[in-house]
Amino acid sequence: MKKILIINGVNLNMLGSREPDVYGKTDYATLAAELVKFGAEVGVTVDVVQSNIEGEIVNFIHSAQGNYDGIIINPGAFTHYSIALLDAIKSVEVPAIEVHISNVHAREEFRHKSVTASACVGQICGLGVNSYKLAIKYFAEV
Amino acid sequence: MKKILIINGVNLNMLGSREPDVYGKTDYATLAAELVKFGAEVGVTVDVVQSNIEGEIVNFIHSAQGNYDGIIINPGAFTHYSIALLDAIKSVEVPAIEVHISNVHAREEFRHKSVTASACVGQICGLGVNSYKLAIKYFAEV
Amino acid sequence: MKKILIINGVNLNMLGSREPDVYGKTDYATLAAELVKFGAEVGVTVDVVQSNIEGEIVNFIHSAQGNYDGIIINPGAFTHYSIALLDAIKSVEVPAIEVHISNVHAREEFRHKSVTASACVGQICGLGVNSYKLAIKYFAEV
Amino acid sequence: MKKILIINGVNLNMLGSREPDVYGKTDYATLAAELVKFGAEVGVTVDVVQSNIEGEIVNFIHSAQGNYDGIIINPGAFTHYSIALLDAIKSVEVPAIEVHISNVHAREEFRHKSVTASACVGQICGLGVNSYKLAIKYFAEV
Amino acid sequence: MKKILIINGVNLNMLGSREPDVYGKTDYATLAAELVKFGAEVGVTVDVVQSNIEGEIVNFIHSAQGNYDGIIINPGAFTHYSIALLDAIKSVEVPAIEVHISNVHAREEFRHKSVTASACVGQICGLGVNSYKLAIKYFAEV
Amino acid sequence: MKKILIINGVNLNMLGSREPDVYGKTDYATLAAELVKFGAEVGVTVDVVQSNIEGEIVNFIHSAQGNYDGIIINPGAFTHYSIALLDAIKSVEVPAIEVHISNVHAREEFRHKSVTASACVGQICGLGVNSYKLAIKYFAEV
Amino acid sequence: MKKILIINGVNLNMLGSREPDVYGKTDYATLAAELVKFGAEVGVTVDVVQSNIEGEIVNFIHSAQGNYDGIIINPGAFTHYSIALLDAIKSVEVPAIEVHISNVHAREEFRHKSVTASACVGQICGLGVNSYKLAIKYFAEV
Amino acid sequence: MKKILIINGVNLNMLGSREPDVYGKTDYATLAAELVKFGAEVGVTVDVVQSNIEGEIVNFIHSAQGNYDGIIINPGAFTHYSIALLDAIKSVEVPAIEVHISNVHAREEFRHKSVTASACVGQICGLGVNSYKLAIKYFAEV
Amino acid sequence: MKKILIINGVNLNMLGSREPDVYGKTDYATLAAELVKFGAEVGVTVDVVQSNIEGEIVNFIHSAQGNYDGIIINPGAFTHYSIALLDAIKSVEVPAIEVHISNVHAREEFRHKSVTASACVGQICGLGVNSYKLAIKYFAEV
Amino acid sequence: MKKILIINGVNLNMLGSREPDVYGKTDYATLAAELVKFGAEVGVTVDVVQSNIEGEIVNFIHSAQGNYDGIIINPGAFTHYSIALLDAIKSVEVPAIEVHISNVHAREEFRHKSVTASACVGQICGLGVNSYKLAIKYFAEV
Amino acid sequence: MKKILIINGVNLNMLGSREPDVYGKTDYATLAAELVKFGAEVGVTVDVVQSNIEGEIVNFIHSAQGNYDGIIINPGAFTHYSIALLDAIKSVEVPAIEVHISNVHAREEFRHKSVTASACVGQICGLGVNSYKLAIKYFAEV
Amino acid sequence: MKKILIINGVNLNMLGSREPDVYGKTDYATLAAELVKFGAEVGVTVDVVQSNIEGEIVNFIHSAQGNYDGIIINPGAFTHYSIALLDAIKSVEVPAIEVHISNVHAREEFRHKSVTASACVGQICGLGVNSYKLAIKYFAEV
Repeated sequence: MKKILIINGVNLNMLGSREPDVYGKTDYATLAAELVKFGAEVGVTVDVVQSNIEGEIVNFIHSAQGNYDGIIINPGAFTHYSIALLDAIKSVEVPAIEVHISNVHAREEFRHKSVTASACVGQICGLGVNSYKLAIKYFAEV
Repeated sequence: MKKILIINGVNLNMLGSREPDVYGKTDYATLAAELVKFGAEVGVTVDVVQSNIEGEIVNFIHSAQGNYDGIIINPGAFTHYSIALLDAIKSVEVPAIEVHISNVHAREEFRHKSVTASACVGQICGLGVNSYKLAIKYFAEV
Repeated sequence: MKKILIINGVNLNMLGSREPDVYGKTDYATLAAELVKFGAEVGVTVDVVQSNIEGEIVNFIHSAQGNYDGIIINPGAFTHYSIALLDAIKSVEVPAIEVHISNVHAREEFRHKSVTASACVGQICGLGVNSYKLAIKYFAEV
Repeated sequence: MKKILIINGVNLNMLGSREPDVYGKTDYATLAAELVKFGAEVGVTVDVVQSNIEGEIVNFIHSAQGNYDGIIINPGAFTHYSIALLDAIKSVEVPAIEVHISNVHAREEFRHKSVTASACVGQICGLGVNSYKLAIKYFAEV
Repeated sequence: MKKILIINGVNLNMLGSREPDVYGKTDYATLAAELVKFGAEVGVTVDVVQSNIEGEIVNFIHSAQGNYDGIIINPGAFTHYSIALLDAIKSVEVPAIEVHISNVHAREEFRHKSVTASACVGQICGLGVNSYKLAIKYFAEV
Repeated sequence: MKKILIINGVNLNMLGSREPDVYGKTDYATLAAELVKFGAEVGVTVDVVQSNIEGEIVNFIHSAQGNYDGIIINPGAFTHYSIALLDAIKSVEVPAIEVHISNVHAREEFRHKSVTASACVGQICGLGVNSYKLAIKYFAEV
Repeated sequence: MKKILIINGVNLNMLGSREPDVYGKTDYATLAAELVKFGAEVGVTVDVVQSNIEGEIVNFIHSAQGNYDGIIINPGAFTHYSIALLDAIKSVEVPAIEVHISNVHAREEFRHKSVTASACVGQICGLGVNSYKLAIKYFAEV
Repeated sequence: MKKILIINGVNLNMLGSREPDVYGKTDYATLAAELVKFGAEVGVTVDVVQSNIEGEIVNFIHSAQGNYDGIIINPGAFTHYSIALLDAIKSVEVPAIEVHISNVHAREEFRHKSVTASACVGQICGLGVNSYKLAIKYFAEV
Repeated sequence: MKKILIINGVNLNMLGSREPDVYGKTDYATLAAELVKFGAEVGVTVDVVQSNIEGEIVNFIHSAQGNYDGIIINPGAFTHYSIALLDAIKSVEVPAIEVHISNVHAREEFRHKSVTASACVGQICGLGVNSYKLAIKYFAEV
Repeated sequence: MKKILIINGVNLNMLGSREPDVYGKTDYATLAAELVKFGAEVGVTVDVVQSNIEGEIVNFIHSAQGNYDGIIINPGAFTHYSIALLDAIKSVEVPAIEVHISNVHAREEFRHKSVTASACVGQICGLGVNSYKLAIKYFAEV
Repeated sequence: MKKILIINGVNLNMLGSREPDVYGKTDYATLAAELVKFGAEVGVTVDVVQSNIEGEIVNFIHSAQGNYDGIIINPGAFTHYSIALLDAIKSVEVPAIEVHISNVHAREEFRHKSVTASACVGQICGLGVNSYKLAIKYFAEV
Repeated sequence: MKKILIINGVNLNMLGSREPDVYGKTDYATLAAELVKFGAEVGVTVDVVQSNIEGEIVNFIHSAQGNYDGIIINPGAFTHYSIALLDAIKSVEVPAIEVHISNVHAREEFRHKSVTASACVGQICGLGVNSYKLAIKYFAEV
């Protein structure tokens, strides 16, 4: 059975109370639980971790090497400036998909650019919780 | 039954023979057929159109109004400069998802920017034919 | 009697249903008819054409040479990137006025720049249907 | 009867002798008189003021509040850098139209950008004295 | 007893009627009176002047030399482009604090940059009338 | 009694020994104690925290939700690039004021821009320890 | 016998009447005939096509695959912004040379950049009709 | 006898007390007197005017038309942003030389650019009072 | 005996497995041991620390004050955006040398710029493990 | 008989051994001889000079005045920054064609811009030795 | 008696025949002779040198150290990019004045910037031969 | 025995007298002698050359091919703009290390960028004469 590591970055723990117009009303614990459950439904093991500290996210990525078949990463604000995460994703052989809950292209201009996406296989954004689910689906079937 | 219009833009008719390292070896007719079939499997009607002429793609988008429940659009190179397509997507009420076969963020810098994505619900890129399929899946289930 | 060619560009056929807050609720056919009628009132023959295809607009401009005394052009989104239209206007001797329904200067920054206006006699924007009518008036009286 | 305030900015008092290739040979007093006369013809009262001092133009704009139904403003060079005028136009409820005698888009690049136009209803440029007259006409009939 | 000169720049005379969402509903005379009164309460003499003319503000600054112990300046729109004011503040030995009623960092990008602040001791913005009062307090106690 | 959380960012623990020409000679412990004491004098409870780790500062901000009436934040160098802090401040409903000991506008150009200030109520800079005290005063009285 | 496809882009049909100072007085039909004749002289078959529609030029390029030994393309204004043409040239295996009648480097700055040239073997510009003839010569002899 | 108008711009009245390291210790009245005297020595009549108000400097320039044989202008800070002064100099036929006391090229980058110099015959900077005297000399002898 | 602190930043723990074409095949533990040994050979005590967390690296730098005679720092990706590290290096009196294993100037453009180097004595890059050794040598002999 | 001066710039003497993937394996002496021979075949006298010193190339250009009917210049790296060569070409009346062996548009971005081409009649690039030969051909026949 | 070294840069040897509209019709030898003669008249020894080679101009500047009281330098095109000349002027203690025959501010934008002027005492431009003479005059009298 | 060529660029001959705060007080001859001696100590033959002429430095680089085992180059100001040197270093197979006496990253912004470093193995800067010595050491031991 494939194993997927979902890594959530900075401020994602505030989901539900944080700018609900942009990010929806589901709280973070619910999101995490829903993704684990969805993984089970499509036949993959899903682990979900979160940190507000960039370096801990780097550690999560490193830890995937040899332990997971895929990474789904929502770096939050780090998407737009963390060369450290870019390098971390490049430093492991596990394929990664970058996801965003909101459509970053329809927000402030500094959110259009992703520093981290070039090290990933691809990117899914704007589809809410489904951004994660479609990525799980991808790993489940490829 | 939901109806989805898949609009392929410029040069996508060359799929299979065009830069196969980037875009894969599946030819365009096969891709189109596969997407119609996949739609049927997940319970939506999928129509697929293609044009190399920006203005015809504008017409395709306009034609979706009142006739389709969702648009999946891969504008090809127009993604990066066609304000006309941006305005066209905004001129209809049908929700659109932008898709790309390749990971645009890992290619030339001028491909990182999408002029059209801000008018869409979201964007999926880098996952090959699965970029389209996940978008179909999204419309099928939302 | 002077002859004026009004050329409407991309997405203008969607007038009325397209972003009515920005462009008003008059539909395109009504606009066209109103401009022909207004031309008659001020003593000029007005022909109105529209296309979503940049190259067809180029053809419309070329066709004005020797056949019309003035061009009124609303290139729509092409205003902001079509060097082809710029060159087309420069390639004929018929004077042109660029018009816009909305005030482009009060919208997104990429709409502030007009690529085509430098080849025109002048530009009128922000006055709704009156942007066209004042341009007709100008040609009628100069 | 509607009242229109025409505000002319810096260097416009030199009209007629100043770069006649660009601005024409009509002198400033003649222009002002012609506009007042044209206003009378189309049924509006037109007052014309001019200053070379940015802050006095701000004062003219403020003075329109409650006293005029429309402002026609040609800020001259201030168009391109006066955020003070931008804010002044936003500080009153009287609608304003920005006008230019020459086609600013066909001149030096720094003249293409208008700092003030975004606070106006619209802009008319390149039509010589008719830029003013069409604006008067607009206010007379709207 | 310390003497403070408060200099208000362009459009501040319109306070109360000008964009009340941004600047509040207190009118200018009330603001000026309130600041003089507050100065008295904390033990400093406060004089308040205003002009819409950049050069008059330069004169106000020059006049502070030898006559005041501190300048509190809200240059209004001049903040963003007046190198003349920058040089004027540098030409006197009286310390100055720049203040803004609104949070300039949360508005249009061109308002984020202050041309004048580098010649001041510091800057206070976004706190409404309190931006001025805290500056008075600073001078009263330092 | 109102509760204020003062959050000091990266390198502020080095106060006193770090570039004393820029930041003064008061050491960090003294600063913290002085602010707590000043809070007591003006009738508010002041808690002071510090971290050199961006993600811990994010956590401090999150922790203010429901527990404090105001945040005073000096992000240090994070001011200029931490979109994570920007989003953190937006993710809570507690109003925040950004403060700086030095006048950032009179230093290197990269320090003029604040990434975080747009999410705050306002900003106070350049007034040394008084930048903090005036912010405390503001919360105490508003 | 080698076969060469000459593709002329937007506004080239206006040759002769269009800005004769820049493009010369030869009309388009004469140019096309002269190139066919020149091809015959140097022993290659030359076909000449033209369109003002970007997408039709894309189609011309696609059609060269398997049918021609070389493409000579003068994209006109599309040179400067058509990523679609760039991709089209890359999508076929036929070598292409970009040509321009005028010296693009001695004209407006936006004409200095070629979006399409990087997909070609080389570029010849500024030599009038000879730009085409030298390219024919190159294919004839290489 | 030739007549020269020396126009001094903003903050020049503060000469002597203003940043003496940059501008020297001579006060403004002394400078003006010295220039008049020097003019007499080399056989030209020199008038010297000064204003801190941009629009008054525009008026000074306009007044030179028909009354002076040369303008020597030190616009002060207006050098770097006043398109109004640029246009004013272009609006009269009197030749102008721009002068600066300090070497603007050795100061802040925003002082390197002169908006006004392109309308002048030439520019002299960095030579203190001699910048003016050499300009007088030029007009006296040419 | 001099004491040197070698600080390795983000992702350097992955050395050996991470992009071996760029960084070589030596693993991190081996590198650290080799540097300690080399220090001993040239007569200095070498301590080696590593963290993926920017703020911990700040702490390492602070800890050098009074305890070490030199810092050798390879900030990894933080080199290119961490103003926090820049300020940290400036906050201590211990001289620092920045080192890189790869030649940052021969990689992506965003790696050419070092935010941190201006606070260091100098920089050595591109020489593999020797970048560190030469820096140790420098401290050993200066 | 027409006389053509071929001027080769910096590093072209290394042809054959220098980056053969980019510039081919023909050595410089062979190239020069081949061009002289080709000139003879098409009826023009060809002289070939080379220097690595920018100023000597300036001298070569000056020496063409009155002695040659055409210049063919490959400035090498100087193409991209030598305003001195631009001015030199403008300082003589002999027409010049700029040539490049490789397709500069398909290499690093800094090679896309030619500083010198605007002073030439035209430019030929990407065709190897044929870039020179076609230019010779042009001068031979025009 | 003071000694002045006049250094003329690239292409100045072509004076008289080179773009006479911009640089006048006096040839270089005449200019040089005229400057020597003028020096004698105002009591200074003037030596004049010229080179088209940047490095030789560097040598000329170095040679002035200890041998001349002033340098007058017209670097020609090197003005706009030669950091080598900037450093050379800084490497000697002889004061230098930069001169230009034409008004660089009224020409192409790349000529507005002087790389070398910041190392000079000042700059004189646009006054033809008088640019040199006024500089000689300055050194003669200061 | 390995042979190393040290190439010093423009203005380095002025060492000792040139800006001693930046470059130290050792004169150039002493530096050269010291490097030769140091080479001998570590077992390599060191030759040292210098020129102020960019093209001569190109020649020095070319001459290293087949004659030296390593190049140590300090291009001086040419570092920041000489694409010619970049290409020269790429045209030979001898490995090169770029060195600088001062820390270029702590000086003017235009000195932060190295045009030449990407063609080198690595770069050492800021360590005075030791920048050279460490590079010699590197070649001696690798």
